[in-house]
Amino acid sequence: MRTILLRIAYNGARYHGYQVQANAKTVAGTFQPVLEQVLNEKVQLKGCSRTDTGVHASDFGVSFQTNSTISHRGLIQGLNINLPPDIAAKSCEDREEGFHARYSCTGKRYVYRVRDSGVRSPFEQDLVLLHKYPLDAALLDAAAQGFVGRYDFSAFCSAGGSVEDRVRTIYSFQVARRGELVEFSVIGDGFLYNMVRIMVGTLLDMARGKLPCAPEAVQSVLLSKNRNRAGATAPAHGLYLDKVYYEPIETQ
Amino acid sequence: MRTILLRIAYNGARYHGYQVQANAKTVAGTFQPVLEQVLNEKVQLKGCSRTDTGVHASDFGVSFQTNSTISHRGLIQGLNINLPPDIAAKSCEDREEGFHARYSCTGKRYVYRVRDSGVRSPFEQDLVLLHKYPLDAALLDAAAQGFVGRYDFSAFCSAGGSVEDRVRTIYSFQVARRGELVEFSVIGDGFLYNMVRIMVGTLLDMARGKLPCAPEAVQSVLLSKNRNRAGATAPAHGLYLDKVYYEPIETQ
Repeated sequence: MRTILLRIAYNGARYHGYQVQANAKTVAGTFQPVLEQVLNEKVQLKGCSRTDTGVHASDFGVSFQTNSTISHRGLIQGLNINLPPDIAAKSCEDREEGFHARYSCTGKRYVYRVRDSGVRSPFEQDLVLLHKYPLDAALLDAAAQGFVGRYDFSAFCSAGGSVEDRVRTIYSFQVARRGELVEFSVIGDGFLYNMVRIMVGTLLDMARGKLPCAPEAVQSVLLSKNRNRAGATAPAHGLYLDKVYYEPIETQ
Repeated sequence: MRTILLRIAYNGARYHGYQVQANAKTVAGTFQPVLEQVLNEKVQLKGCSRTDTGVHASDFGVSFQTNSTISHRGLIQGLNINLPPDIAAKSCEDREEGFHARYSCTGKRYVYRVRDSGVRSPFEQDLVLLHKYPLDAALLDAAAQGFVGRYDFSAFCSAGGSVEDRVRTIYSFQVARRGELVEFSVIGDGFLYNMVRIMVGTLLDMARGKLPCAPEAVQSVLLSKNRNRAGATAPAHGLYLDKVYYEPIETQ
């Protein structure tokens, strides 16, 4: 029995998130039948994460066990021929027995993309948050350093998460201009429900002057553990799961 | 009477090109009613160019005359509220009497985008040509220099063009890697029907070894004025009208 890790990417615009649901089109619900067709057997598919409706993934790990002797190249090609154009199979590798896309994950990087020119791009529909006013990326980057460290992130967690332990470690948080976009890039060992979107929403509220824009203000909200002190949940369509780590993370 | 130049951008995937057609959805056919609604008067809309089905524009000039006293800001906002998400109004300016989006144009830059990793991106559907094998951008750039200059480009013009004078000047042609894409960027005083797509298709045929990859080979095809000597017409969806010039062009 082989254990295989596949890395996929998907445009979340047409999907009700990753996780299989009974009456909605999802990424897993679309991907699994194609995988089973290519392998010619049923599989138990494990995903690295859930993602919300409209959230994208540039790198998403799924694992499964199989008796198939299919080559890596054959598997990738077979998947890409049969998948819809908004889901792509990027690469695959054989892993040790017991490997699990979710439980073996050591961390993740999320990127949130904002176009702050106020004028939408016709090439980014559902892919980037449009912001009416220019952002000061350096100022936001300075404030975002207040998130870095090991904390109880209850203030940055939507109701509906069932997790009891809300302590997570953020290894790095960078806000930088990249071409005409501002990118928020955050690496952590794990993330609570809506955590990245609330962190970004809080920074955007700071940019609008609703909160002081400084790392001390972030820390004050963080230590309150009070969701009402944090900012709005930023819209789903600017968010990308950008990288899934399965090796020890080098902190910067 | 004011003469206004508007710069728009559009994703060509859903449109049968720019030019109004009787029974097909086009960019002009979609844009003009919205403009007339915002101005509350009929206009004669002049476009800088035709584009084929599926071709995109990052910068496309349209001009019209109007009695409206609308502000530039009001016009842009009114258009963007009412246009579909795959067409955007970028900027506008008042121009001198007699200005015409097509006849006042001094040149254009086209960019052709190719992903050569062999694996499609779910975020670029209809926006980038997928190429199965890696391209040598430096080698293609060297060959492309054979296009630079003033020539009769009959070998790089599809049948169906009605133009008699096929002499055009190419000011620059650059092929460069940009992230995971290879971009072909060409500036000229004008372009014949399908000219950019045939030039790029010829370079891609050179990359595949169907033709020698060198500026001398480009020159040999060019001087033959024989369309059959050039390569295939590259697909429409990788092509962008990237910039329209209305001032003297600084050649590099």
